[in-house]
Amino acid sequence: MEIELAFFIRMAFLASCIAFAYAIYLCAWVKKIKVENQKIISVGKLIKAGADTFMRKEYRVLAVFTLVAAFIIFLLLPAPLNRSDIWSNLTMALSYVAGTVFSAIAGKIGIYISTIANTRTAQAAQKSMGSAFTVGFRGGSVMGLSVVGASLLGVASILALTGSTTALLGFSFGASSLALFAKAGGGIFTKTADISADLVGKVELGIPEDDPRNPAVIADNVGDNVGDVAGMGADLFDSNVAAMAAALVMASNLDGGNGINIATVFCYVTLGLISSIIGIMTAGLGKKGTPTGALNRSTYITTGVFILLTAAVTAIVEDFRWEIWGASATGLFVGVIIGMATDYFTNDAHSIVRKVAKSSTSGPAFTILNGVSYGFVSSLPAMIGIAVSALAAYKLCDGLGDGYAMFGISMAAVGMLSIVGMIVSNDAYGPIVDNARGLAEMGNLGEAALKNADELDSAGNTVKAITKGFAISAAGLTVISLLGAYMSELNVKAEELGFDRIEIFSLTDPTVFFGMLIGAAVPAVFSAMLMLGVVKNAGRMVAEIHRQFREIVGLKEGRSGVLPDYASCINIAAGGALGELVSAGLFAIAITLGVGFVGGVYAIAGFLVGNIVSGLLLALFMSNSGGLWDNAKKYIESGAEGGKGSDAHKAAVIGDTVGDPFKDTAGPSINTQITVVSLISSLFSGLFLTFSIF
Amino acid sequence: MEIELAFFIRMAFLASCIAFAYAIYLCAWVKKIKVENQKIISVGKLIKAGADTFMRKEYRVLAVFTLVAAFIIFLLLPAPLNRSDIWSNLTMALSYVAGTVFSAIAGKIGIYISTIANTRTAQAAQKSMGSAFTVGFRGGSVMGLSVVGASLLGVASILALTGSTTALLGFSFGASSLALFAKAGGGIFTKTADISADLVGKVELGIPEDDPRNPAVIADNVGDNVGDVAGMGADLFDSNVAAMAAALVMASNLDGGNGINIATVFCYVTLGLISSIIGIMTAGLGKKGTPTGALNRSTYITTGVFILLTAAVTAIVEDFRWEIWGASATGLFVGVIIGMATDYFTNDAHSIVRKVAKSSTSGPAFTILNGVSYGFVSSLPAMIGIAVSALAAYKLCDGLGDGYAMFGISMAAVGMLSIVGMIVSNDAYGPIVDNARGLAEMGNLGEAALKNADELDSAGNTVKAITKGFAISAAGLTVISLLGAYMSELNVKAEELGFDRIEIFSLTDPTVFFGMLIGAAVPAVFSAMLMLGVVKNAGRMVAEIHRQFREIVGLKEGRSGVLPDYASCINIAAGGALGELVSAGLFAIAITLGVGFVGGVYAIAGFLVGNIVSGLLLALFMSNSGGLWDNAKKYIESGAEGGKGSDAHKAAVIGDTVGDPFKDTAGPSINTQITVVSLISSLFSGLFLTFSIF
Repeated sequence: MEIELAFFIRMAFLASCIAFAYAIYLCAWVKKIKVENQKIISVGKLIKAGADTFMRKEYRVLAVFTLVAAFIIFLLLPAPLNRSDIWSNLTMALSYVAGTVFSAIAGKIGIYISTIANTRTAQAAQKSMGSAFTVGFRGGSVMGLSVVGASLLGVASILALTGSTTALLGFSFGASSLALFAKAGGGIFTKTADISADLVGKVELGIPEDDPRNPAVIADNVGDNVGDVAGMGADLFDSNVAAMAAALVMASNLDGGNGINIATVFCYVTLGLISSIIGIMTAGLGKKGTPTGALNRSTYITTGVFILLTAAVTAIVEDFRWEIWGASATGLFVGVIIGMATDYFTNDAHSIVRKVAKSSTSGPAFTILNGVSYGFVSSLPAMIGIAVSALAAYKLCDGLGDGYAMFGISMAAVGMLSIVGMIVSNDAYGPIVDNARGLAEMGNLGEAALKNADELDSAGNTVKAITKGFAISAAGLTVISLLGAYMSELNVKAEELGFDRIEIFSLTDPTVFFGMLIGAAVPAVFSAMLMLGVVKNAGRMVAEIHRQFREIVGLKEGRSGVLPDYASCINIAAGGALGELVSAGLFAIAITLGVGFVGGVYAIAGFLVGNIVSGLLLALFMSNSGGLWDNAKKYIESGAEGGKGSDAHKAAVIGDTVGDPFKDTAGPSINTQITVVSLISSLFSGLFLTFSIF
Repeated sequence: MEIELAFFIRMAFLASCIAFAYAIYLCAWVKKIKVENQKIISVGKLIKAGADTFMRKEYRVLAVFTLVAAFIIFLLLPAPLNRSDIWSNLTMALSYVAGTVFSAIAGKIGIYISTIANTRTAQAAQKSMGSAFTVGFRGGSVMGLSVVGASLLGVASILALTGSTTALLGFSFGASSLALFAKAGGGIFTKTADISADLVGKVELGIPEDDPRNPAVIADNVGDNVGDVAGMGADLFDSNVAAMAAALVMASNLDGGNGINIATVFCYVTLGLISSIIGIMTAGLGKKGTPTGALNRSTYITTGVFILLTAAVTAIVEDFRWEIWGASATGLFVGVIIGMATDYFTNDAHSIVRKVAKSSTSGPAFTILNGVSYGFVSSLPAMIGIAVSALAAYKLCDGLGDGYAMFGISMAAVGMLSIVGMIVSNDAYGPIVDNARGLAEMGNLGEAALKNADELDSAGNTVKAITKGFAISAAGLTVISLLGAYMSELNVKAEELGFDRIEIFSLTDPTVFFGMLIGAAVPAVFSAMLMLGVVKNAGRMVAEIHRQFREIVGLKEGRSGVLPDYASCINIAAGGALGELVSAGLFAIAITLGVGFVGGVYAIAGFLVGNIVSGLLLALFMSNSGGLWDNAKKYIESGAEGGKGSDAHKAAVIGDTVGDPFKDTAGPSINTQITVVSLISSLFSGLFLTFSIF
C-alpha cells in the first residue's frame, strides 16, 4: 500500500486531538469526585495556592528570559539579520517562543490536575487501595497525555506551517530552555523544602513526616508538584521533541528529502501515542495486584502494543523499512532492559539496597561510600545498553543508503521515547500519591488510609527510579542523534557560507580534544551549582522554620488552632530556586558559546561529545545513588536493621538527605543541560563557523 | 653546536647515576642519626616489620601475576609467536618484566628509607621543627631521587639494549601493571587501617589518634608507608616512564627517525632530574619559614631551574627547537597553575574549606553535599588547564612537520613531569612526618615534639593535595600522548599485517561512540570496586579491633605492659587489600580486551578517549573532595566552628571518612588504570586488528 506524507501528518494531528480529548475526559472524571473532608480541602487549597505562586513567579522569570532569548535569536539565527531575510529570522524566533509556550502549557496542565487529584486520591485511600490507585493514576495520565499530545501537535504544526526543519530545532530549543529552568528550578524548590522539612521535623523534633505543625510541610507538598510533575514533564516534553526534531532534520536530508522518512517518524510517534493510550486504559489494580505490578504491567503492555503496531504498519506500507522498525524496537527493548537494571540497583527487593541498609549500621560514612560505589557501578549496564542500541541501530540501517545509519540512531531514540506518555503518567502518579499521603496525615484520615497511601507512594518511588533511568537513556540516544543533526546542520551552513564541507571530526584532533575535556566538566559543574543552590536555600529555610517554632506560641505543642506560616517557607523556596537556577542555566549556555567562539565548530563537536559522555555517566550515577539511598532508608523504616530510630536509620536518613538533590535536582537536570547544549551548538553552527577565533 | 644522540644517552646514564649517588648519600645521612628513645625504636621496628610483611605478600602475588603476564606477552606480543620471531617476543616479555622489577625496586627503596626516617624525624621533632623538617624531607628525597633515577635508567637501558620503541611500551606496561596493583593494593590497605583505627579509636572510644592501645595503630602507620610511599611512588614512576615512552615512540617515527627528537626527550628528562636535585638541595626551613612554604619554594625553584636549563640548551644545541621548548614549558606552567587551583579548593587558608566546615554545623549531609559539589567544580580549572596546554603544545609544534604536533603534546607531558623528582620527594615526606607524629604520640615525646610533628604533618597534607592534582594532570597529558602512540603503533601494525592505514577516528562513527560510552564507565566502576574493597575490609578490621578490646584484659584501661595484637590487624588489612585489588585490576584489563576483541581498533580508540575524559574528571573530583573534607576536619579541630568534639566536628569526621578512600584509594588509582588501559590498547592493537568480531 502506498500512502502519502500528508496522510501521516493528518494522522498525527488526529492522534494528538485524541490524546487531548482523552486527557480532558480523565480530568473531568477526577474532578467530578467530590471531596468531603473539610481539612483536606483546606490543605489542598494551600498546596494549590503554593504551587500556583511558584509557577507564576517562575513563568514570569522565564517569560523575561524567553523574550530576551527570542530577540537574540531574531537578530542572529538562522543567520545574522544583515545576511538573512527577516522572515526566516522571525520564523525562528517565533518557533522558539512556541516551544517554550507549548512546554509551559503542558506544565501548567500537569500542575492543575495534580493539585486536584491529590485530595481525591487521599479520600479514595480511605475506601480502598484499588480506587485510590485509579484516581492517582488517572490524574497522572492527564499529564502524560498532555505531554505527548502537545509535543506531537507542536512538532507537526511547526513543520506544517513553516516547512523548515531548522525552525523545528528552534521549537525544540524553546522546549529545552524552558525545561532547563523548569527542571532545575522545580528541582531546587522541591529538595529545599523536602530537606528542610525532614531536617527540622524528623531529625530535630522527631515529629512525623507531613505533620501539619511543620512550617515547611506545605512547601514540601508543593515541591512534589512543581519538581516532579511540572519539572519532569517539561524534561520529557523536551526529550520527546528533541528526538522527533533530530529524526526529522535527518529525515529531510535523506534521499533528497523524499517524504517517506518524515512520514515514518510521524507514524511511529503517533503509534507510540496510541500505545500509551491503550496502556493507560488497561491500568488498574485488580483484586490481588500491587501498585508496582500494575504500573509495570501497563508499561509492558504499552511496549508490546507499540512493537506490534509498528510491525503491522511496516508490513502494510510499501516504503516503510524493516530496518527502521528494527532500530526503533532495539531502542525500546534496550530501554526496558535499562529500566530493569535500574530496578536491580534501587529496589529493596534485591540485594544492593539491603547491603547499603546493612552497612548503615556501621555509620553514615559507610552508607555514603556504599551508595556512591554502587551508584558508580550501576552506570555500567545503562552505558553499555545505550552503546549497544546505538551501534545496533546504526548497523541495521547503514545499508539503506547515505545518512540512514545516523537516522537509525534517531529512530532508536524515537522508539525508546515511544512510550513516553506512559512514562510521564507513571511519573506524575508519584507526586499525586505522595501528596495524598501528606493529606491523609494532615487530615487525620486514619491508619488504613495512611497505610494505603504509603504503599501507593512506595510504588511511585520504585517506578520513579526506573523511569528516571529510562529517561536518561532516552536522552542519551536523543543527544547522540542530535550530534548527527549538528553535523547535518553544520554542513548546510558551511555550504551556504561558502566553507568547505566538514566530513569528519577526528578524535585525535587537539581542538576536538580541547572541547571534549571542557565539555566533560560542564555537567559536573552544572549539577554542583544546583546542589549548592539546594544547600544554600535549605539553610535559609531551616532558619525560618526555627524562627517560627521559636516565635509562634503553641506551635511546637500542637495547640489547636495554632498554624505555622506556610507561605513564608514557600516564598523562601521559590525565591532561592529562581535565583540559583538562572546562574546554573546561564553557565551552561555561556560556556557553550565561549567554547564555540574560541575553538570553533571542531571544538564544539568535541565539547558535545564530552558533555554527552560525562553527562550520561553522572546523571545515571546521581539518579541511581539517590534512589538507592531513598529505598535503603525506607527498607530500614519497614523494620530492617533495627528499624525507625535506630543508628542505622539515622545513618540512612543522612544518606537519603544527600541523595535527595542527587536524584531529584542534579541528576535528572543533566539531561536537559545536554539537550540545551546540543541544540545551541546546532543553531549557532553557522556563527561559530564564521566568527570563531581558532 | 651539534651534538649526537649517543651523547645525550650517555648524559642520561650519568644523571641517573648522580641521582642514585645523591640518594645513597642522603640515605646514609639519615641512617647515621642515632635513635635514643627505646620506645620509639620498638614501635619503629613494628612498623617496619608490618610494612615488610605487606610488601612481601604483595610482591609475591605480583610476581605470580608478572610471570603469567610475561608468558602471555611472550606468546602474543608484538605478534603471535607463530607469525613473529622468537627474539622479539622474548625481548618484549623481558622488557615487561624489567618494568615491573624497576618499579618494585623503587618501591622497596622508598619503604626502606621511610621506615628509617620516621623514627629519626620523631626524635628530631623533640629538638626543633627545622631539624625534623630536614630529616623528613631528606628521607622523602631518597624516594624521589630513586624514582626518577630508576625511570631514566630503565628507559635509557631498554632503548640502548633493544633499540626498539615497542619494547619501551612493554617496559612501560610492566611499570604500569605494577603501579596498578601497588597503588590500588596500598590504597586499600592504608584506608582500611585508617578508617578502622579512627572509627573505633576516635569515634567510639574517644582515645587520641595514634594511641598505642589501639590494635589498628601500627597498621595505620604501616599503611602510610605502603600506600603513600610505595603506592604513590609506583604511580609516578609509571607516569614518568609512560610519558617518556610515548614521547620516544613518536620521536622515533618523526623525520624518518633521525635522532634529534629522541635526543631532545632524553635531554629534557635529564635536565628535569638535575633541576630536581638542585631543588632538593635548597630545601630547608630557615629561621622563620613554614614547612609548607619550604616545600613550595623548592618546587618553584625546581620549576624555574628546569625552564632556564632547557632554554639554555635549546639556545646552544643547533637542532633543538624553541617550539618544543615552548610545549614543554607550557606543560610545566599549566601544571603549576593546576596545583594552585587545587590548593584553592583544598587549603583551609581559602574560603572553600571554611565554607564546608561551616556547613558541617548543619549536619553531615551538608558536609557531604558541599564537598561533592565543590569537588565537581574543582575539576573545571584542571580540565581547562589540560585542554589548553594540549592545544597550545599541539599548535606550537604543528608547523615543524608531520607528526610533530602530537609529539608536542607528549613534550608538554614530559615538561609537566620534569619536576617529578621534587613531587615524589614532597609526597614521600608526607607519610614520614605522619609516622613521626604517631611515634611522638606512642613514645610520649612530649607536647613540643607533638606540636612540631603536627605542623609538619599538616604541611604534608596540603602539599599532598597539590601534588595529587599535579600528578593527575600530568597523567592526563601523558595519556593524550599515549593516544598518539596508539595511532602510531596501530599503523605500524596495520602496515605489517597488510591492513589499510587508519588515518582518522571519527567522533560520529558509532563503533567509536560505542567504545567511548563503555570506556567512560570504566573508571567509575574501577574506583567503586576499590572503595567497596575498603569498606568490606574495614568491616572485618573493626570486628577484630572490637574482639581485642573485649578479650584482652586491661587493654582498654591502658594497663602497663598490656599490648594489643597489632599483627592480626596488619594481616587483615594485607589479605583483604590483595584480594580486592586483583579483581579491580583484572576488571580493567578484561573489559579493555573485551571491547577490543568485540569492537576492534575503532571501538578501542573511542574506549580510550572515553576512559581518559571521564577518568580525569572522576580522579580530580575524588582527590579534591577528599582533600577538602580532610582539611575541613583539621580546620575544625584547630578550633573553628566549635572545635573538637562539637557536632560540626562529628559531621566533618564523617566527611573525612568518606573522603579517605576517595582521595587515597580510588581517585589516584584512576591514573594508573588509564595508563594501563592505554598501553594494553597500543600493545594489542595488532591482535585487535586481526581478530576482532566487528
